[in-house]
Amino acid sequence: MSKPYKGFRPPWIEERAPEGSYREIFKWGDHTETKIPKESLYKMMKEIFKMTDEDFKEPREIGYDKVSYDVPVGLGEDKLDALRAIVGAANVRTDDYARLSVAYGKTMHDLMRLRKKVIENIPDVVLYPENKEQIEKIVAYASEKKIPLYVYGGGSSVTRGVECMRGGISLDMRLNFNKVIAFNEINQTITVEAGMSGPQLEEHLNNAVKEFGAKRAYTCGHFPQSFEYSSVGGWTVTRGAGQNSTYYGKIEHIVLGQEYATPAGVIKTDDYAAKACGPDINQIMMGSEGAFGVLTHVTLRFFRYMPENRVKFSYLFKSWADGQAAAREIMQGEFGMPSVFRLSDPEETELMLRLYGVDEIPGALKIFNALGYPQFDINKSLEGEVNGEGKCLFLGWSEGEKGFARNQARQVRKICTAYGALPLGSFPVKGWEKGRFKDPYLRDAMQDFGIMTDTLECTVNWDNMDKVHKFVRAYCKSRPNTICTTHLSHAYPQGANLYFIFITKMSELDDYLQYHRGILDHIQASGAAISHHHGIGKMFAPWLEGFLGSNQMDIIRCLKKHFDPDDVMNPGGTIAVDLDESEKRYLREKW
Amino acid sequence: MSKPYKGFRPPWIEERAPEGSYREIFKWGDHTETKIPKESLYKMMKEIFKMTDEDFKEPREIGYDKVSYDVPVGLGEDKLDALRAIVGAANVRTDDYARLSVAYGKTMHDLMRLRKKVIENIPDVVLYPENKEQIEKIVAYASEKKIPLYVYGGGSSVTRGVECMRGGISLDMRLNFNKVIAFNEINQTITVEAGMSGPQLEEHLNNAVKEFGAKRAYTCGHFPQSFEYSSVGGWTVTRGAGQNSTYYGKIEHIVLGQEYATPAGVIKTDDYAAKACGPDINQIMMGSEGAFGVLTHVTLRFFRYMPENRVKFSYLFKSWADGQAAAREIMQGEFGMPSVFRLSDPEETELMLRLYGVDEIPGALKIFNALGYPQFDINKSLEGEVNGEGKCLFLGWSEGEKGFARNQARQVRKICTAYGALPLGSFPVKGWEKGRFKDPYLRDAMQDFGIMTDTLECTVNWDNMDKVHKFVRAYCKSRPNTICTTHLSHAYPQGANLYFIFITKMSELDDYLQYHRGILDHIQASGAAISHHHGIGKMFAPWLEGFLGSNQMDIIRCLKKHFDPDDVMNPGGTIAVDLDESEKRYLREKW
Repeated sequence: MSKPYKGFRPPWIEERAPEGSYREIFKWGDHTETKIPKESLYKMMKEIFKMTDEDFKEPREIGYDKVSYDVPVGLGEDKLDALRAIVGAANVRTDDYARLSVAYGKTMHDLMRLRKKVIENIPDVVLYPENKEQIEKIVAYASEKKIPLYVYGGGSSVTRGVECMRGGISLDMRLNFNKVIAFNEINQTITVEAGMSGPQLEEHLNNAVKEFGAKRAYTCGHFPQSFEYSSVGGWTVTRGAGQNSTYYGKIEHIVLGQEYATPAGVIKTDDYAAKACGPDINQIMMGSEGAFGVLTHVTLRFFRYMPENRVKFSYLFKSWADGQAAAREIMQGEFGMPSVFRLSDPEETELMLRLYGVDEIPGALKIFNALGYPQFDINKSLEGEVNGEGKCLFLGWSEGEKGFARNQARQVRKICTAYGALPLGSFPVKGWEKGRFKDPYLRDAMQDFGIMTDTLECTVNWDNMDKVHKFVRAYCKSRPNTICTTHLSHAYPQGANLYFIFITKMSELDDYLQYHRGILDHIQASGAAISHHHGIGKMFAPWLEGFLGSNQMDIIRCLKKHFDPDDVMNPGGTIAVDLDESEKRYLREKW
Repeated sequence: MSKPYKGFRPPWIEERAPEGSYREIFKWGDHTETKIPKESLYKMMKEIFKMTDEDFKEPREIGYDKVSYDVPVGLGEDKLDALRAIVGAANVRTDDYARLSVAYGKTMHDLMRLRKKVIENIPDVVLYPENKEQIEKIVAYASEKKIPLYVYGGGSSVTRGVECMRGGISLDMRLNFNKVIAFNEINQTITVEAGMSGPQLEEHLNNAVKEFGAKRAYTCGHFPQSFEYSSVGGWTVTRGAGQNSTYYGKIEHIVLGQEYATPAGVIKTDDYAAKACGPDINQIMMGSEGAFGVLTHVTLRFFRYMPENRVKFSYLFKSWADGQAAAREIMQGEFGMPSVFRLSDPEETELMLRLYGVDEIPGALKIFNALGYPQFDINKSLEGEVNGEGKCLFLGWSEGEKGFARNQARQVRKICTAYGALPLGSFPVKGWEKGRFKDPYLRDAMQDFGIMTDTLECTVNWDNMDKVHKFVRAYCKSRPNTICTTHLSHAYPQGANLYFIFITKMSELDDYLQYHRGILDHIQASGAAISHHHGIGKMFAPWLEGFLGSNQMDIIRCLKKHFDPDDVMNPGGTIAVDLDESEKRYLREKW
């Protein structure tokens, strides 16, 4: 339960979603959990989106109906029997709920469709495999019978990665395919089934002493915002990144070995840290997003679990330019990489300070202003101003061995203060940390009243960061009364990820798609890489050839043909290997 | 000139190799430079290899003859004219010397053939391209006319990587293709032509202030032993590693962007530090070793040049097991990675202490013994003992930001002393550093008297390191009077590179090939990765499918077919995509 409101309180939905309902499927995370806006945030929303209490009288499209639709199972009983013979009858489901529950991911496109009961691209059957041998048999069978085969991991895809464009089979990996295969303390590696969730993996490693007789506790080091509802397999095939990736690396730096079941046979890589034995097969398979085969086993490095050594820090910069310059200096300073590393632009900073209640500390904002840390003018921004100046919040932490972490924090401080930053201590970091996995719940509450929140991200180099930021913001701000916040995170000596969050009053699918496409167009046109860690899926696929060029796309298409000549593995546009005509048309018009 | 000998002094060749001679081609490095054994080393060699002064009276197969052979140019004048039209007549050579100078690399197989004037696999023509446009035209022409096309970079391949198995064209990249294309201080990246040598690149970066108006000096961080005679392109296509790779990374971690001319068109990757846009094309091209196309431009990260922050350290362990355990602890300690990191096994330690003159310090060895750091029994080892105990020398340095480097050196000391190691200070490191690029010259001097030195290396994980070490040593030691030294270097939290040096009296090609194959067989059978940084080339190719398995080999073959359907790019076995029947037979018999 949240704090009581003093004024009007919208009927926020805080109860458990009805069993078997659409809401169960589209809402974020745990069926019983919710997060609703505190009163100050509610007031801010009304102000920003020009809404009144009246607009919040009645939640809409809340998906309380029981899942039910009329899409017949397109696979005959003979085929279903064959699948039952592989995984066991109990692990085969064809009911409406099971099929819909794996049909969508968690992009706004998915949520809007589910709220509106737009039922499309539904699998005919959902299987719950128990081991890799079963998966190998399913792949062979699907390939032989030319049945489309999709995979559902944690379900948090924001790229329509899991969507069953051509019906067929969906493998739901969560239920039965999440066991530890091997724990190797000497090499600091663990091999797991691909359906293991983030928290399951982290728990095994945190409890390694008890569970495996290890000498100490370990961590996986990979904490995407979707952590709780993401899977090791999903991380790997999409090239995901955790919020601590600046220190631990993206998943492609953490995963050492992979095993796939493909129509062209099993691909099992070794798990050496480095070698010079031809092209890197691991890096061919990572990023294939199910289009080459199904990932079964994953071998990952792990790390010492030493939260006691963390040094949390935050700084306020006078401007976005100062913050970026300091961030680059830190990344190029050669004292190791901080773990969390996050610089918010002026608009995001303004919102974060309000979210964390800093604006409620009497006089705080005035003092910042007086000291030369100007307040961002959110009203002008809502009217379309793109380049509004304002202070920028930088937060993060260092970890690793104690002396290493401390020296790093000292260097960070030295650089930040040299760029005129005000140290704010660990308080804002703790605020961010507390909300890091819970904020997605807020999205559902706001959407119940027609407020849409979505994100897009991209990789930039230091020298085009500012250009990309301005260019994408200019487009976002072309829609009035729209919040567009950005942070720089997942940093490297050469550049970083820019992460855009846009919030606006919007409930129609077409509006959303047009806006989303426009942002992607502007990311691409600004020269950024169209995805740093969300992957490509089917949603970003029309932009991929424009980014890579046809000669590189030809390499990926050639690999697709090799692994999956009949196009049964995640077919329907995944990583652009089999775009349909309308998508190709869009592509041609644009690039 | 070396120190005078007190006793018999063999007629070591110290003069410049005759101009236009075979020796010019096979000797290491600079035509005018030599390195000859000091007297104590000469005495040791006689002892080890059971030789007498008599054996050193007359150097043999020294290659003083002028290069001349009777292999006609297989390309007609029309084709040569077409090539002249592309690169200019002055950049086309068909004389015996030019053709032989790019036909071989620097493995013992190459040196023996050149000493014996075994002329095989000679290109018809050598081209010296000036820019990437010329290379693109050459690739298109070679592809159209089905002329085999080879590339010669620095010439230090130890895998027969450059050898022109089917004649045709060899591109000698050294002469004209070594310019800086772009220097970007903001992103800390530099783009260069692939023929640029290691020292050229390092000089540009060290002199960045003068040359590019940069704020400070930088370093490339990549220093293989072949540094002076290797090229950026060679590093990249073979997945090389420098001696400081534990900190700076292997070349595949340093290279961000690549451009290739292939029969399937130009492949130009972006240079983002990370992204999630499908399979990683950079990692497909790296390791292709010229079999997919010719690398033209390379974009590399660079680093701050801060030698003043280096902390050099060395320790003596009581045993190989203690040394390995400490090395693993350091790698997994999460205080950043040391730059140089090298643990010698007992046999190598014994030799190094003699080479650096520690054995000449009165009483030194006795003191070590008394303190429990036992002396390795080299005589027993020469008689075939595999597992002789003995002390182990560990040396390295930390670098980067000052506090980072110092904290690291402190942690290293803490761990080493906890494993009973004796700190030896920076002296042995300096000895190693002095010789690091010069030792290859010694190999020529010894070979003049029939003593063969060669190396093989592999990647191991910590948990199979000891097994691989013993297994490979057992084979090496099956040949009597053979030195086999090993060091662990290029380390990771999961494992390291094991580097084997074997020295024995041997001058016949067949003997060498049989021994070399035997060692590779044993590396493979022990479960190690057959190359950590030397690449595969044509020499290790018959082992590749045994290491990767056929399903992974099929991926590489599929890529080869895509890029180069007519097999004109480095044809004749490179990375096993077109092994001939005898090689396949060997493969089948073995695996």
